[in-house]
Amino acid sequence: MKPRPTELDAATSAARHQASDTTDEWRTALTCIEPNKILVRGYPLDEIMGRLTFGEAIYLLLVGEIPSPGMGRVMEALLVSFIDHGATPPSTLAARNTATTGAPLRACVAAGVLGFGRYHGGDIETCMQFLDSGLALVREGVGLRDAAERIVQKYVDTHEVPPGFGHRFHTRDPRAARLFQMALELEVEADHIQMIRAVEIALHGHPDEHGRTPPVNIDGAIAAVCGDLGIPPTIADALFIISRVPGIAAHADEERQRQQPMRQIDPKDHRYDGPSARRLPERRK
Amino acid sequence: MKPRPTELDAATSAARHQASDTTDEWRTALTCIEPNKILVRGYPLDEIMGRLTFGEAIYLLLVGEIPSPGMGRVMEALLVSFIDHGATPPSTLAARNTATTGAPLRACVAAGVLGFGRYHGGDIETCMQFLDSGLALVREGVGLRDAAERIVQKYVDTHEVPPGFGHRFHTRDPRAARLFQMALELEVEADHIQMIRAVEIALHGHPDEHGRTPPVNIDGAIAAVCGDLGIPPTIADALFIISRVPGIAAHADEERQRQQPMRQIDPKDHRYDGPSARRLPERRK
Amino acid sequence: MKPRPTELDAATSAARHQASDTTDEWRTALTCIEPNKILVRGYPLDEIMGRLTFGEAIYLLLVGEIPSPGMGRVMEALLVSFIDHGATPPSTLAARNTATTGAPLRACVAAGVLGFGRYHGGDIETCMQFLDSGLALVREGVGLRDAAERIVQKYVDTHEVPPGFGHRFHTRDPRAARLFQMALELEVEADHIQMIRAVEIALHGHPDEHGRTPPVNIDGAIAAVCGDLGIPPTIADALFIISRVPGIAAHADEERQRQQPMRQIDPKDHRYDGPSARRLPERRK
Amino acid sequence: MKPRPTELDAATSAARHQASDTTDEWRTALTCIEPNKILVRGYPLDEIMGRLTFGEAIYLLLVGEIPSPGMGRVMEALLVSFIDHGATPPSTLAARNTATTGAPLRACVAAGVLGFGRYHGGDIETCMQFLDSGLALVREGVGLRDAAERIVQKYVDTHEVPPGFGHRFHTRDPRAARLFQMALELEVEADHIQMIRAVEIALHGHPDEHGRTPPVNIDGAIAAVCGDLGIPPTIADALFIISRVPGIAAHADEERQRQQPMRQIDPKDHRYDGPSARRLPERRK
Repeated sequence: MKPRPTELDAATSAARHQASDTTDEWRTALTCIEPNKILVRGYPLDEIMGRLTFGEAIYLLLVGEIPSPGMGRVMEALLVSFIDHGATPPSTLAARNTATTGAPLRACVAAGVLGFGRYHGGDIETCMQFLDSGLALVREGVGLRDAAERIVQKYVDTHEVPPGFGHRFHTRDPRAARLFQMALELEVEADHIQMIRAVEIALHGHPDEHGRTPPVNIDGAIAAVCGDLGIPPTIADALFIISRVPGIAAHADEERQRQQPMRQIDPKDHRYDGPSARRLPERRK
Repeated sequence: MKPRPTELDAATSAARHQASDTTDEWRTALTCIEPNKILVRGYPLDEIMGRLTFGEAIYLLLVGEIPSPGMGRVMEALLVSFIDHGATPPSTLAARNTATTGAPLRACVAAGVLGFGRYHGGDIETCMQFLDSGLALVREGVGLRDAAERIVQKYVDTHEVPPGFGHRFHTRDPRAARLFQMALELEVEADHIQMIRAVEIALHGHPDEHGRTPPVNIDGAIAAVCGDLGIPPTIADALFIISRVPGIAAHADEERQRQQPMRQIDPKDHRYDGPSARRLPERRK
Repeated sequence: MKPRPTELDAATSAARHQASDTTDEWRTALTCIEPNKILVRGYPLDEIMGRLTFGEAIYLLLVGEIPSPGMGRVMEALLVSFIDHGATPPSTLAARNTATTGAPLRACVAAGVLGFGRYHGGDIETCMQFLDSGLALVREGVGLRDAAERIVQKYVDTHEVPPGFGHRFHTRDPRAARLFQMALELEVEADHIQMIRAVEIALHGHPDEHGRTPPVNIDGAIAAVCGDLGIPPTIADALFIISRVPGIAAHADEERQRQQPMRQIDPKDHRYDGPSARRLPERRK
Repeated sequence: MKPRPTELDAATSAARHQASDTTDEWRTALTCIEPNKILVRGYPLDEIMGRLTFGEAIYLLLVGEIPSPGMGRVMEALLVSFIDHGATPPSTLAARNTATTGAPLRACVAAGVLGFGRYHGGDIETCMQFLDSGLALVREGVGLRDAAERIVQKYVDTHEVPPGFGHRFHTRDPRAARLFQMALELEVEADHIQMIRAVEIALHGHPDEHGRTPPVNIDGAIAAVCGDLGIPPTIADALFIISRVPGIAAHADEERQRQQPMRQIDPKDHRYDGPSARRLPERRK
């Protein structure tokens, strides 16, 4: 029988090692460290510095190759899109509740990352699988609209919203719209984006009692874009985590700088006092 | 007497709230969320997407303003410099040991972030204080070289290496050299970088029994650059955490994709099998 | 359509709150805090102190009632059984790798807890479901041995070991045997323990090429005992986490007290130098 | 010069290992694992099961020896005293905010443990040092009352409350009183408890504008008791973490069972609906 991997195997594995010299064959393709030399996926890290952006270096590290300029720009936009969503997401509140106890910043960031549960960012992976199920139909010869109609039906029947859709706060997520626009302009749009748009249209045929249908949300937009960039779901999940860490760190730092320790954090009880709406400087447009 | 902030105050604070309507005056200057609108430090998030890089958006979120182009490029290089340091740092091993148990990616990342203890990345903040102590002397009229000599003396006396210096593996950290070069070219070099160089020279007067002196390491380089960019130590700490998350996520993902679960992870027992050394494509130089 | 719970709902929920006074109806049945009074599941905490053991208080808090003396003793044994399994489990190594970076004890414990992935302690919940599937057959009129045979067949067919069984290190887990013995003596043994024994016998009919069959392991024993105590799988999962925290904390503390910081932790490279085998004092038997 | 322990040393240490067979001399005195045998501090784990309580086994694992019956009972009471403090401590809120995102129980527990910052449980270690500073004076020949008066003076001068004292919610912490009573009855009371009582009396001489002085809180009581049991501050810190994990797990589990996912958690907005005040059954008194 094939044994189950358990804690006890770990002990056994140690015992076996003491008896022989066989190794576990641990191989890594990420980074090679030698004296005065650091190669990330083969490229010297000091050469990358100043020549690839952080977003491009993240792509290189996770995917293995330098992205094309268009892919690189979409990658940057994707990472920026999730950078922060205000004080009320539970992951941010977990980080702030940790910060108010006087915990160090790294503990606050870890607590925030743990707050990316199934319901928080988890739609990206589910939505990729959802779109792939539609594209599988297309490859079998079903038309795009019919395929979208078919994969939507299950959710219509159970009165549920498909993954990557829906938003009670925003009726049109500005981040999703912008990401699709960029994918189009930079010519990285392909079948996943087409499928999610077909799904959006298919949903128009099934409005709720107020005549509304759910819009694509940012999870859905990122799922579609990652699909078209050839990024596998597990890497898309990593990108989501990476993209939100700055927001979590910023809130934890602000909590420590501006608030009393050991306070009771009521999510409704906050007020924005930052700069009012402003436009990017000309040189940035 | 001024009460201590403790768990029990939290309960009291809740009790007080039940009796009155006064609020804790929680204010946040980071991100404003309104229907169909997300403002990061006042800028619409969808306008930032595609116009600021992830590194520039991180600076905006943490510091409050868009960096100048030169500062932005140094910020990118700084974030790239820490992106990964191979399989053996304890934080990476914590993430891999978590991954081998079948834990989800976010749990692995959190465990890795918790492995940024005092000895791992912690030198940045300490080194900033160390350089500031030297610059305080300069402001009092002491010459740069004398100030460096004075702050180094304490470490020489106790046979310790000052924060931001030393490396048993690299004798010249390629990342530190590149960061200083960029700071010079992009004209963001100022008194902190001058001070750390003065310290390096001062250390030359105190070689060890083999005639060697410790080089500036990447923690020291980042401390000096952050000092010259006007980034406070707590934000520098946040930047360090943000910069290493992609590496931790990449190792956790690789562990899950390429290795058997519940294996014994011996840091010495790995082999790099990624691409061999290669140069950036021409268009990237 | 029923909306999906997402980050964006959180923001919406906050918005709704600003408009009305309706509450989320948050109710808790665990602990009531009033001035100079703390009631845990209705019992004054200061009365519990000295009258219930920690194990009994854990049962009270999680399950809602004080256990019978027999159940209380089995609960203590169950918590003790997992208290530590040496230096090599990946969760312990995650905690030690965190400790070696100089991180505070609570960060080390958190990293260790994160190392309870699917393959590490996760068998308890799976095994409970496995036993329940057999007991469902029994309730339909199938005999105990036949039911065990049937639920084992799937694993025999795929050459896999059922959850709660198998051990490459111990051929007879001393903890499992002791837990079953205590359950019998204290008269808490019921249908789940009978089912896991029937499964063990059923497995004897399907030896591997060396004539061996996998023994019940401690995960299986705890699953069966929790089933017979009427403890639901989610609470059994909580008990596993609680039981191992002392071991993780002890290893993290030992790492900080006895080892150099920033060392490379090789799981094979350790030696036990504690007391050699000794017997409990007479008064404890 | 003595090098600083940094990430880079970890890489070096690996490099050195590749060249030689010398080991890091990793020794552990906690648990010895051999086939079919598990020794905790020398005692077979299966013999401990049913003979030591969980609290006694925790003491054995952390301190190295089986506690005397009196010490064991105080240890149990100490662990029970912290088991839960309702829904509002920030660590509990961090765990609940993590749970509401659909994260697994272990992630919620880790987030909760990270919420034991400097202000949350951190007083135990500080108070032990505070009491020790007084006892050092006593050893120099200063009387108990004078020593207490002296160490209190610093706090009186700065209008601060000494560590281990103060409580805005409870004016008399029922847990502290009970712990002292038990220590007295079980004859483990010694100089640390005498010192904390002397401090409490000394504070009576310095009432606030309302004529009030801060009472000993549970952190102070545990600090004094641990001091008298000979438990070092780092182990006392471990005990605090261990004692609160059941409460965190219970709240995380309740959040998942009783509340909607992705809800906004307002600490003021909850209501206790568990059993009303009840007495322990006769056999437990």
